[in-house]
Amino acid sequence: MTEVEIKKAQDSLQSRLAQVIELLNRQRVVEGLTHRQDGQHQDRVETLVHRQNLVELQRKLEDLHSADVAYILEALPLDDRLTVWQLVKADRDGDILLEVSDSVRETLIADMDDHELLAAAKEMDADELADLAPELPRDVIHELMETLDAQQRERVRSALSYNEDQVGALMDFEMVTIREDVSLEVVLRYLRRLKELPGHTDKLFVVDYDGVLKGVLPIKRLLVNDPEKQVAEVMASDPVSFHPDEDAYDAAQAFERYDLISAPVVDKNGKLIGRLTIDEMVDLIREESESEVLNMAGLREEEDIFASVWKSLRNRWAWLAINLITAFLASRVIGLFEGSIEKLVALAALMPIVAGIGGNSGNQTITMIVRAMALDQVNTGSTSRLMRKELAVALINGVVWGGVIGVVAYLLYGSWSLGVVMTAAMTLNLLLAALMGVLIPMTLSRIGRDPAMGASVMITAVTDSGGFFIFLGLATLFLL
Amino acid sequence: MTEVEIKKAQDSLQSRLAQVIELLNRQRVVEGLTHRQDGQHQDRVETLVHRQNLVELQRKLEDLHSADVAYILEALPLDDRLTVWQLVKADRDGDILLEVSDSVRETLIADMDDHELLAAAKEMDADELADLAPELPRDVIHELMETLDAQQRERVRSALSYNEDQVGALMDFEMVTIREDVSLEVVLRYLRRLKELPGHTDKLFVVDYDGVLKGVLPIKRLLVNDPEKQVAEVMASDPVSFHPDEDAYDAAQAFERYDLISAPVVDKNGKLIGRLTIDEMVDLIREESESEVLNMAGLREEEDIFASVWKSLRNRWAWLAINLITAFLASRVIGLFEGSIEKLVALAALMPIVAGIGGNSGNQTITMIVRAMALDQVNTGSTSRLMRKELAVALINGVVWGGVIGVVAYLLYGSWSLGVVMTAAMTLNLLLAALMGVLIPMTLSRIGRDPAMGASVMITAVTDSGGFFIFLGLATLFLL
Repeated sequence: MTEVEIKKAQDSLQSRLAQVIELLNRQRVVEGLTHRQDGQHQDRVETLVHRQNLVELQRKLEDLHSADVAYILEALPLDDRLTVWQLVKADRDGDILLEVSDSVRETLIADMDDHELLAAAKEMDADELADLAPELPRDVIHELMETLDAQQRERVRSALSYNEDQVGALMDFEMVTIREDVSLEVVLRYLRRLKELPGHTDKLFVVDYDGVLKGVLPIKRLLVNDPEKQVAEVMASDPVSFHPDEDAYDAAQAFERYDLISAPVVDKNGKLIGRLTIDEMVDLIREESESEVLNMAGLREEEDIFASVWKSLRNRWAWLAINLITAFLASRVIGLFEGSIEKLVALAALMPIVAGIGGNSGNQTITMIVRAMALDQVNTGSTSRLMRKELAVALINGVVWGGVIGVVAYLLYGSWSLGVVMTAAMTLNLLLAALMGVLIPMTLSRIGRDPAMGASVMITAVTDSGGFFIFLGLATLFLL
Repeated sequence: MTEVEIKKAQDSLQSRLAQVIELLNRQRVVEGLTHRQDGQHQDRVETLVHRQNLVELQRKLEDLHSADVAYILEALPLDDRLTVWQLVKADRDGDILLEVSDSVRETLIADMDDHELLAAAKEMDADELADLAPELPRDVIHELMETLDAQQRERVRSALSYNEDQVGALMDFEMVTIREDVSLEVVLRYLRRLKELPGHTDKLFVVDYDGVLKGVLPIKRLLVNDPEKQVAEVMASDPVSFHPDEDAYDAAQAFERYDLISAPVVDKNGKLIGRLTIDEMVDLIREESESEVLNMAGLREEEDIFASVWKSLRNRWAWLAINLITAFLASRVIGLFEGSIEKLVALAALMPIVAGIGGNSGNQTITMIVRAMALDQVNTGSTSRLMRKELAVALINGVVWGGVIGVVAYLLYGSWSLGVVMTAAMTLNLLLAALMGVLIPMTLSRIGRDPAMGASVMITAVTDSGGFFIFLGLATLFLL
């Protein structure tokens, strides 16, 4: 592709989305007119314009890569999304369904009848089918399984038997296998007969007659070695390989660490049963980092930004309800000190500063720890060391910023003892935030939970209740 | 690798780290003893044990892949990290330096003298050198540049001339180029003579005599096509390619979208100047998602979890200071209503509930929007639609949860009008949170800033001050 062509293509992902939206809007105007005027003659004209727009839109969409259509579908609100989907689904519904996110896929599948679903599914590979199966209606799956041959059916069943986060659910079955006792020349001739190689083929898998993996032959070695050599001489006999029941994210980290493109999956007996490829791993790495962000904010899952209000509510209610309880507890802590506040109303104005800065600082700590844990950089041996560092940071921040705010409190209310209480409370609450910022994710991880889970809600709960208690308690003891 | 071998290798990344730490601890005990006893005879024995430990440790480290050593270095506190670094740095300091994160790399480089740095750098490719250069002392770079040949020097210079986030800074120069007017047979023979192909070679670059990119020949096509065919017949003439001044993250998204392994980088005249590979793009995708998490929490950059207290402080101070100001403003809002609180002290206890739930809900909204923006799914056309949805979600949450908390307030304080004010304030503050959760990232993006930047601090600031104002304002109007 020359320079000019590239520029065009790259502008166009954004600009084509704009074009699609433009066409959809024109469409909407036309429909609005038709609806309002209702005259018969008028109607026919509008219908023509309508058709013309749709044809232009369809032509635009046909030029796009499936991944780009998927991108456009994700970025469109539900009604526009379905209009576009009607236009593209006849041809390449399968490809596109596999590219969109889970939440958007749901909205698209809901718009397809059994016949369309069946047609789309028939063109898929076993691993792709397994991906889609949980979202398909029961009778479609049933009918589908009957159209598959025994091997395909077995593969779909096997892929479905693993959890989403296991290697078995992500592997595909498109592998080129060879024997170790042939020459590279024979391998080259064999490949030529295949006419096409599966995507991401950077190595061939060497198996024995029982299908047991003996090694891999990287394409690079096949190309640079003397064709007279035997596969066994050239192959790598100790490749990184995976088991179907391993954690998929661990596999993704291995891909990242060792710069892999593809890797074999073997069963308990060392038999080759599938293959992992970098494209699936990249998706996984992105999803994992995203679910970390979402979990920290107390969102249950990835949300289609144009999801219905009801779906959004369900996604967010759980943590909001927990937050309601923690906020109520913080409120009761203040309730304990209502007498003190009545005597010195300045306390009511100053207490949110102590709580708020504690929350923010705790969020910084917990974010850093959760991230380090996701990268496997924190082990139990280093807990106390990490804790000491975080406490030191908190102490300095408390004395410095707490000092500043103490001076401000003195200037505002003219009481130096109030200023001292403020500084002390800030420091103590920052220490509490540091302590809990380390302990919460460590504890969650120790009891087998995701350390990011609602991290932000929990740390804020602690620093709110704790901050109010520390500040109002100190004030009651020393000021009243 | 058979099943047994794999299990071993996979256990060991975690367990080898444990072993390294165990050896380091034994080391420390020995050093402690030597220090305390100080007897000459004793000393010699300790030195022997000391040596023995180090030798064992060194042997363990030698078995590890550079990426695994990098992982161990990241997971160790500074003093242990430097002990391990002393043991490995002679052999493969270059490889390891390239694998560790920026912040850890800094600590390692600080521990090397110019001579060691020069030796490590001499084994690197031009793009790797450019990666490292900003962290090397001036005189090392100077001396290094003199040892390079003209082409290498030019490449380092060119890579250094781009920003970290541009394609030009990430491209490498290890490409296999061929001509379009030769047969595949000739290409195969040419490759065999090369003896080794660069990593991630999934395609060969077809250039003319001026070095202008004419197309790419995927290795897959090279393998399955008749060797008599010409390159021009088989090559893809419209590959996805990039410009050195393009945004690297856009390139990474294209790699993800089109499942690329490598892609050519061309200059303004279409001349091939380098290549991007998936491994760099995977790193970028991970870094981008991480910086999103960190930015939202108000951390300036990725932090070495064992960084010194001083470095941690610098990383966190900016946003803490901003938070101090926003907390102070929220406090002044309360100050406005001190009279009301004096009359009805229950207000002081209830107000953090309104602020807290608003903050949590706003964080959910802003997290979702920031994520969608990072994936390019939000365009200006959909702002109003998104806003309407978020407002609807907020309204329902406000009425439902606000209603619950209103009833609780009534039960606690026996005033139904206080309950109603509570419900109304919750609803209004949730609506404010939704509005700002959409507007803040959209506005940041419109003025060219990172929409994740301190998102959490900012939304909390709005919902705190806003929540206090709404609740205390309503209470003053209707209850007093």
